[in-house]
Amino acid sequence: MNPAIEKIHIVKFTDQKLNPYDDTISIEEPLEISLVYFNEGKKTKKNISITMRTPGQDDALAIGFLFTEGIISDFETVDKISQTNENEISIHLKENCVIDLSKIERHFYTSSSCGVCGKSSIDSIRVAKPRVSIAPQVKFSPTLFLSLNEKVRTQQSVFESTGGLHASALFDKEGNLISLFEDVGRHNALDKLIGDAFSKKLFPLNEHVLFLSGRASFELIQKAVMAEIPVICALGAPSSLAVSLAKEYQISLIGFLKNNSFNIYCDAYNLLTSD
Amino acid sequence: MNPAIEKIHIVKFTDQKLNPYDDTISIEEPLEISLVYFNEGKKTKKNISITMRTPGQDDALAIGFLFTEGIISDFETVDKISQTNENEISIHLKENCVIDLSKIERHFYTSSSCGVCGKSSIDSIRVAKPRVSIAPQVKFSPTLFLSLNEKVRTQQSVFESTGGLHASALFDKEGNLISLFEDVGRHNALDKLIGDAFSKKLFPLNEHVLFLSGRASFELIQKAVMAEIPVICALGAPSSLAVSLAKEYQISLIGFLKNNSFNIYCDAYNLLTSD
Repeated sequence: MNPAIEKIHIVKFTDQKLNPYDDTISIEEPLEISLVYFNEGKKTKKNISITMRTPGQDDALAIGFLFTEGIISDFETVDKISQTNENEISIHLKENCVIDLSKIERHFYTSSSCGVCGKSSIDSIRVAKPRVSIAPQVKFSPTLFLSLNEKVRTQQSVFESTGGLHASALFDKEGNLISLFEDVGRHNALDKLIGDAFSKKLFPLNEHVLFLSGRASFELIQKAVMAEIPVICALGAPSSLAVSLAKEYQISLIGFLKNNSFNIYCDAYNLLTSD
Repeated sequence: MNPAIEKIHIVKFTDQKLNPYDDTISIEEPLEISLVYFNEGKKTKKNISITMRTPGQDDALAIGFLFTEGIISDFETVDKISQTNENEISIHLKENCVIDLSKIERHFYTSSSCGVCGKSSIDSIRVAKPRVSIAPQVKFSPTLFLSLNEKVRTQQSVFESTGGLHASALFDKEGNLISLFEDVGRHNALDKLIGDAFSKKLFPLNEHVLFLSGRASFELIQKAVMAEIPVICALGAPSSLAVSLAKEYQISLIGFLKNNSFNIYCDAYNLLTSD
């Protein structure tokens, strides 16, 4: 079995009806990268980064990360690479290796907003938001979902010229566009949307639909959980951790939204009206 | 003029020849988000994050970021928002507002690997890599570039089933595929590629071509600079900061690579053979 992918049973809305469907999603899991080095003769371990990655080639990922961040520049300084478990990897430097400590100091556990998060962040969301259902309390017509992309594209025409922006849009339960934000970073587009709704006191958003122009990753679902938005429609694919976080909070997660079909990754039967 | 986009003169290879072309690219610029709060009666300012964002709606972005990170939960606690310059914004909390300091401590200046970087990171790359040209010393046939996507797709078939993975691929100057890595995070796919080449002592990569399956952002160009890869071909759009970093290092940056055309964002005339 390929460690990068996972088979999953989902429901596909196509030809005006729901059908069971076997799908494949990409695995997204945190990897903590640590550096083990000698500081004045004393062996020291420092956590450098947590990144959300697809498992496989973790050695190359950790080495490449340390290289592109300028922390190591000569492969001969690497003594060994050890992986305590599937989510933790350590690069051990040789004892005589001198490293620039200031470069390490730049690296800290980072926020979830940047695609880097991991377990500490998964835990932290539970502190902020008790693990309760935020399942939609209203039902939606399938036709509503099928119309969203066209509504966004109409509004997005100026920006679309660059082909380089992600969009997040908020719709009410009748499918009216409430707001649309775009950014080179998908997490920024969603932060703008949530910050705007928060500032304008549009909360609660518990009868709203969030539209994402790209893929649905863990960090985006995490933000939707914070804002308690119960339905997410993404044009692209969800990751494994996005699906599992959505399930945990009973968010209805739709992926591969097209004009005539979409995939539902959880809570399909409660979500839709029968028309 | 829309603050999210920039007009740029580029060269487009189409119908077997180079043509001048007016293109539009998305602006990518760092924004430093700070929180100003009272700690035991004393006004305190803390830098929370630097994010690479598209300018516009910075207030909403900063507020949304602090909300989705669980740092603020009530808009009434916000006293004011101030922007000292286009790349710095501060959210000021009211004096009587109690905040959870542990949540702030989680946030630090982060590495460039996660889409979050900014000026400190732009500076740091110059420390690690003096600002010298890494322009390609060999020429490439346009036909070589037009063939890359198909070569990657052939290799990528297993992963493609999910539609959820980014790919980075390395080609030699004859267009032979050297390596291909995939990940939910585009920065991870590239770190894997560079880490693999570094570990296998394939450096220097100064006659190689880097293929990116999506958009070209600042962080990806930064990694290519570290590995001194002189030519980058992206299927998607480059951001403004990606183009400016590529120009600075004289990297040949190609975007919107298709089977019969591509856009060259810098150093067009030195790059191509006449066939």
